[in-house]
Amino acid sequence: MTILGEMLIGSRTVKGTSKAIQAINPATNENLEPLFGGGSKEDVDAAAELAWAAFDSFRETDPETRARFLETCADEILALGDELVQRAMAETGLPQARIEGERGRTMNQLRLFASVVRSGNYLDVRIDPAMPERQPLPRNDLRLRMIPLGPVAVFGASNFPLAFSVAGGDTASALAAGCPVVVKAHSAHPGTSELVGRAIQAAVAKCQLPEGVFSLLFGSGNEVGVELVKHPRIKAVGFTGSRAGGTALMEQAAKRPEPIPVYAEMCSINPVFLMPQALNARGEAIAKGFVGSLTMGAGQFCTNPGLVIAQSGAELDTFLEVAAAELSKVATQTMLTPGIFSAYCSGVDRLKGNAGVREVAVGQGSDAPNQCRAGLYVTSAEAFIADESLGDEVFGSTSLVIECKSVADFVRVAEHLEGQLTATLQLEDADIEAARALLPVLERKAGRILCNGYPTGVEVCHAMVHGGPFPATSDSRTTSVGSAAINRFLRPVCYQDLPQALLPEAIKDSNPLGIRRLVDGQDQR
Amino acid sequence: MTILGEMLIGSRTVKGTSKAIQAINPATNENLEPLFGGGSKEDVDAAAELAWAAFDSFRETDPETRARFLETCADEILALGDELVQRAMAETGLPQARIEGERGRTMNQLRLFASVVRSGNYLDVRIDPAMPERQPLPRNDLRLRMIPLGPVAVFGASNFPLAFSVAGGDTASALAAGCPVVVKAHSAHPGTSELVGRAIQAAVAKCQLPEGVFSLLFGSGNEVGVELVKHPRIKAVGFTGSRAGGTALMEQAAKRPEPIPVYAEMCSINPVFLMPQALNARGEAIAKGFVGSLTMGAGQFCTNPGLVIAQSGAELDTFLEVAAAELSKVATQTMLTPGIFSAYCSGVDRLKGNAGVREVAVGQGSDAPNQCRAGLYVTSAEAFIADESLGDEVFGSTSLVIECKSVADFVRVAEHLEGQLTATLQLEDADIEAARALLPVLERKAGRILCNGYPTGVEVCHAMVHGGPFPATSDSRTTSVGSAAINRFLRPVCYQDLPQALLPEAIKDSNPLGIRRLVDGQDQR
Repeated sequence: MTILGEMLIGSRTVKGTSKAIQAINPATNENLEPLFGGGSKEDVDAAAELAWAAFDSFRETDPETRARFLETCADEILALGDELVQRAMAETGLPQARIEGERGRTMNQLRLFASVVRSGNYLDVRIDPAMPERQPLPRNDLRLRMIPLGPVAVFGASNFPLAFSVAGGDTASALAAGCPVVVKAHSAHPGTSELVGRAIQAAVAKCQLPEGVFSLLFGSGNEVGVELVKHPRIKAVGFTGSRAGGTALMEQAAKRPEPIPVYAEMCSINPVFLMPQALNARGEAIAKGFVGSLTMGAGQFCTNPGLVIAQSGAELDTFLEVAAAELSKVATQTMLTPGIFSAYCSGVDRLKGNAGVREVAVGQGSDAPNQCRAGLYVTSAEAFIADESLGDEVFGSTSLVIECKSVADFVRVAEHLEGQLTATLQLEDADIEAARALLPVLERKAGRILCNGYPTGVEVCHAMVHGGPFPATSDSRTTSVGSAAINRFLRPVCYQDLPQALLPEAIKDSNPLGIRRLVDGQDQR
Repeated sequence: MTILGEMLIGSRTVKGTSKAIQAINPATNENLEPLFGGGSKEDVDAAAELAWAAFDSFRETDPETRARFLETCADEILALGDELVQRAMAETGLPQARIEGERGRTMNQLRLFASVVRSGNYLDVRIDPAMPERQPLPRNDLRLRMIPLGPVAVFGASNFPLAFSVAGGDTASALAAGCPVVVKAHSAHPGTSELVGRAIQAAVAKCQLPEGVFSLLFGSGNEVGVELVKHPRIKAVGFTGSRAGGTALMEQAAKRPEPIPVYAEMCSINPVFLMPQALNARGEAIAKGFVGSLTMGAGQFCTNPGLVIAQSGAELDTFLEVAAAELSKVATQTMLTPGIFSAYCSGVDRLKGNAGVREVAVGQGSDAPNQCRAGLYVTSAEAFIADESLGDEVFGSTSLVIECKSVADFVRVAEHLEGQLTATLQLEDADIEAARALLPVLERKAGRILCNGYPTGVEVCHAMVHGGPFPATSDSRTTSVGSAAINRFLRPVCYQDLPQALLPEAIKDSNPLGIRRLVDGQDQR
């Protein structure tokens, strides 16, 4: 496989004719070949119309066919071999182990969704049989199944070039639901995107699916993305990126003649609450674990711990000393793009320039390009609550510690927070009563609550929620990681008194798919 | 119980101080006592803050307490006795049997949601146990449950003064989810609203729940509604009404600092497809059944059959003759409000004034106020497709027949339709192949597809979908009738490595609620 700088529109490859993008290696700021011509309104239209043409047949593929397609996507991605790993490393500055781990995660994610498709639980089948004798009125035969929304526009994310990109969670869950996907590649890793896109294109062909099931577009500005979200054939949007980018898509989607759902995962500062007994018992270990989480991947995880809440006193002083010592040893790491690096520097300058904020420690420096220098800062609960800007995300290895006078302040700080992807409690048994007072607030603020760990690391499983109230995401009712992500792309349809011959398989009397069904309110299989 | 013209803010009764509303009897245009003073911004704020104060404890009530509360609401509504029935009849012009039937439906709906709360399936509990030995990384203990969104603003609908109003499906499903509710009463039936509101207020007190679980506000203009939707303590909106009203709420909600979901059920013309063999075999019976559905309740059901699609020819001519004969015998019926009557007259005039439309029959006339005179009109598939205005809802007993040259035109007409609550097929076995070609289009266009019946009549059960793509509703992913309506007011939260002592009951190891749980991807109880 060679990277040709081509878009994939159904089974075709298309050289874009609008302004080209070119990847750079953020570790060196050197350009990477080739150029990727940007797409036009016509390219968006072609991809969306192909997706629409594929929709009715793709959504009615039998579960085994769709599951095998997802597994074939995984196989084809693995078959890209070292070329994919090397290109992703060059385009992101991420180390080999991280890219290989992420590739494994991406394949596992596709396979998890294959199992979800086979189980059929996501169809939420409900059957209320007819009651012809009921008084005063008979009941009709009523059957419900979920069907997919339609073609989905997916925007690749910069920070996970595989797991949240062309074949990432949005794509996998949309395909699993039966939705064709049109991906707008992230301009920071077009080569990785093309390779993965070709793998999916090959899987579509191998599985003899309609070509419109998958397309991949490039674009240097906003035009391709905006045209995609505006296109009448597109029925939902998946996005991971900045708050500005996500809210712009939300507005675009809301003002369409037919508004559509946008699933944007945007920003989160992921508060970590150090409960007093835990800080007392394990302050040093927590400090070391915290710095490890904070600096992992140059802090470019959506679940990076950007806020620490603790009670002032000798225990916190010790925590800060240990954390400072750890942090000051941390070498710089290459950030994903010059744009992210520049935004990070601005965020750090904003903290440094804030009169209510004190610098505790910074990591080692470097003269190489786009290097993230870690930092730890401190402020008071009063200052934090009084200054909204202190709640803004600094995307990178910087965290702000909030000194509280008492545990009661923890609740005040928590209530003051915007919506978050995660909230973390470091606690001992003796902290549980205090944690109980905090828990309802955290439930209202975050999609995932964790104890005695760190928020980085998002398991792909059934119980995961990678989501949360605005502005963590645009839609708190869902998750973008884990098997429940499929629910984003479904809607219910009820079938009343249809003859068996006309009913979809999932809701026929004979239950040919062998799936769980709620019959008259009772589980049956 | 006496109607005092008072709002209910938590446990208080409050005489509104802004412009008053007064109900009229649409059958006579006479005013009904008393006056209902409208609410202010301060009243909205008081109700929303009480709802917020109640939220954390109400949402953690045990299932039995919440289920009994819903049942107590039903009991208290029944205990209002004949005063409720008489007042609702006076305020709506609807006959006694309809009001009593609707009261039964309203109580059954509350009881259905009590059973939903007891079953616990809606919590969608998922547990992925820890795998400490897993390589290369251990898995944490991960548990998911759904929690409620927060206080919900419910707008009463005019056409079902009980079942889609103060204690209607939106309120019942929101309360079942654990969301406090603030209702903005529909100004057409304030007395009915106050009575039902007092029944819920009494149920809140009897069940010793926090007072903020329920409030009821009046307002003559848009101010109360707008303030409610803008209020930061309100986290979702339920609405049934016009397209203009629903889209205005959608815009309001989208431009909040924290956007919130709006569930607006708006408009639908509910196409009925007469497949050729059915028209041939049962044209006369279908015509009679159709006219019965069309004129039921003066056509003021959201699922009124406003469009009939059939192939031209002798069979259709017979259908039209029979339908015309039936329709011309139908007496006028009192419409719900002078506003609805006036909109109906405009809609009918629009049809009559359309050069591509021919009148087939009208019902009997009357000089009494606000009388709906039924009407049946005909146009061609070409004219329908060429003129978007012919797809607009005429809310009342008027329907438009579309003459097609062939069954292939059925698909063209269906593809041209906006989103619908329902789509109906009249078919015989010999029509099934043709219906198979139409079904995917109808699935994309409608929330419910029915055969050999009429769309009026919406069963309250598990498999019902009363929803559909925009503009039938603002959010096709849900239903406003049936047990799945609870899903609108929920969001998932994941709990990672929480000590058992801190975990909510639903996800404790011992499964104290005895509910269905997905453990490692497998159903367990």
